[in-house]
Amino acid sequence: MDLCDKCGNPQIIIKRKQSGQMLCQECFIKAIQEKVLKDIRRQKLVTKGDKVLVALSGGKDSVMVLDILNNLRERRIIDLVAVTIDEGICGYREDGVDIAAQNTELLGVKHRIVSFKDYLGRTLDEIMADSGDRNACTYCGVFRRWILNQVAREEGATKIATGHNLDDETQSIMMNYMEGNIQNLTRIGVKSESSCEGFTVKIKPLREIPERETALYVMARDLPVHLAGCPYAGDSFRAKIRDFLQEINQEHPTIMYSTLRGFDKIKPVLKKEFSRQNKLGVCRECGEPAAAELCKACSFRKQWKKE
Amino acid sequence: MDLCDKCGNPQIIIKRKQSGQMLCQECFIKAIQEKVLKDIRRQKLVTKGDKVLVALSGGKDSVMVLDILNNLRERRIIDLVAVTIDEGICGYREDGVDIAAQNTELLGVKHRIVSFKDYLGRTLDEIMADSGDRNACTYCGVFRRWILNQVAREEGATKIATGHNLDDETQSIMMNYMEGNIQNLTRIGVKSESSCEGFTVKIKPLREIPERETALYVMARDLPVHLAGCPYAGDSFRAKIRDFLQEINQEHPTIMYSTLRGFDKIKPVLKKEFSRQNKLGVCRECGEPAAAELCKACSFRKQWKKE
Repeated sequence: MDLCDKCGNPQIIIKRKQSGQMLCQECFIKAIQEKVLKDIRRQKLVTKGDKVLVALSGGKDSVMVLDILNNLRERRIIDLVAVTIDEGICGYREDGVDIAAQNTELLGVKHRIVSFKDYLGRTLDEIMADSGDRNACTYCGVFRRWILNQVAREEGATKIATGHNLDDETQSIMMNYMEGNIQNLTRIGVKSESSCEGFTVKIKPLREIPERETALYVMARDLPVHLAGCPYAGDSFRAKIRDFLQEINQEHPTIMYSTLRGFDKIKPVLKKEFSRQNKLGVCRECGEPAAAELCKACSFRKQWKKE
Repeated sequence: MDLCDKCGNPQIIIKRKQSGQMLCQECFIKAIQEKVLKDIRRQKLVTKGDKVLVALSGGKDSVMVLDILNNLRERRIIDLVAVTIDEGICGYREDGVDIAAQNTELLGVKHRIVSFKDYLGRTLDEIMADSGDRNACTYCGVFRRWILNQVAREEGATKIATGHNLDDETQSIMMNYMEGNIQNLTRIGVKSESSCEGFTVKIKPLREIPERETALYVMARDLPVHLAGCPYAGDSFRAKIRDFLQEINQEHPTIMYSTLRGFDKIKPVLKKEFSRQNKLGVCRECGEPAAAELCKACSFRKQWKKE
């Protein structure tokens, strides 16, 4: 009979293919929490006194980040604030916002809900109704980062934590290898590094946790999560890579780790050689950090004004 | 109606997804030959007076390499010799050897057939019958390289040309990215670079030609080719990556090129940083180049002697 490798409990909830380890619910929760907290320490993702803004969509990954970082808040190592961005996606985002609110209430963490409508004057639905040419994810990603960075400053946050897991990160690495996009590769990592003022460092505490374990964690912890998929999701290149990685992971259960480890060895070398001396400037419209005269968000917004 | 982009012939045999270009049989053959000869020149794969040994299995890729390099032989720029290795795979290799012979006869190129049995004392079938533990491809690859390198010296060859195409190369790059095998990555390229004496430089003239175009080329040229698959083929990791790349290539027809271009930018940086100062030594058994005291081939052979 299968028994928990830690405590001998016969009710195991996971057999880790990558290591053969079997764990019961309680030991799995503990093992995951310890692993993430250890990664945070080892990679110096936070320092005492940090105010961490959690980008909380209500999905399993961001709910898990909030739950684990709350441990550091309870121990008064960091302060926390959660922000949910309401993109204005009718029939989808409302539930995510509710669930995010349940989670913050449960933990007693301050929660802000900010909307595309308030910051941009348009919901994502309105943006997409007007523009057939571009992928929703392109707009949405640019605007979410733009808003998040502003809210971080408004809140006096010193870090922004996102829920990117091992699968997400490996997909990004593979996409950029395959597209030959070396510039993007130099920016992938557990911690965004920017010397630019006005730019809040982003951290990914779940970067080493496989997606199936983030799903299992929120179930095991019985946390409310928003499971619906975004109706605009249609990034087929990423979806293809995700499917491939998941499939190959069946027979090669350490493949995402080896991809990540290989990349982490390559990255500093690429950075040294290829990263432009990109002293980010400041957008002349909004004052946010920008690679060009206008930041991406303002260059999209300018197009609307012309219409 | 679709017409050849070069000559207007309505009988087109290819519509290149990556560029939209349509070509008739004659213009396709000419375009491919020009492309490969241009790549050879641009990348300085041969110099006047080289004696190039073609590793000729009889499969479509090696037959194509022989056919195109023969153009340089006819123009007296290089000399050619073809070598077919008979691994001793019953019911499979015999046909390949015959077809290789047909091709060299057609062109009037010197042809040598060398066997595992002669060089190792055992056929691959005999090796595999004795050893259940290891993948046939591991043995076969090591021994083929070992024999090829010896034959190259016996023939006074200055280069060894292989039929690796764009798909093969992209697969190798992806495999090593995913396995995090940086050392191997530093050795992938259009031309093997080794300062070691006794090591003949290997070149891959078809590195930028997609697999489907090598197949189409030998058909268009009506060259005899061996189409059967090796009965030992079972490298499932490579096969999975091949299937994935081919599938994604349907919608992203430049993906293999962008992977290759990205890698070619990264590689020199990796080489500078990661390639061990691997001054290859010489194997104490056979005198061939070796990374350790014994080369891989001799270390396998030593195991047999013990048996």
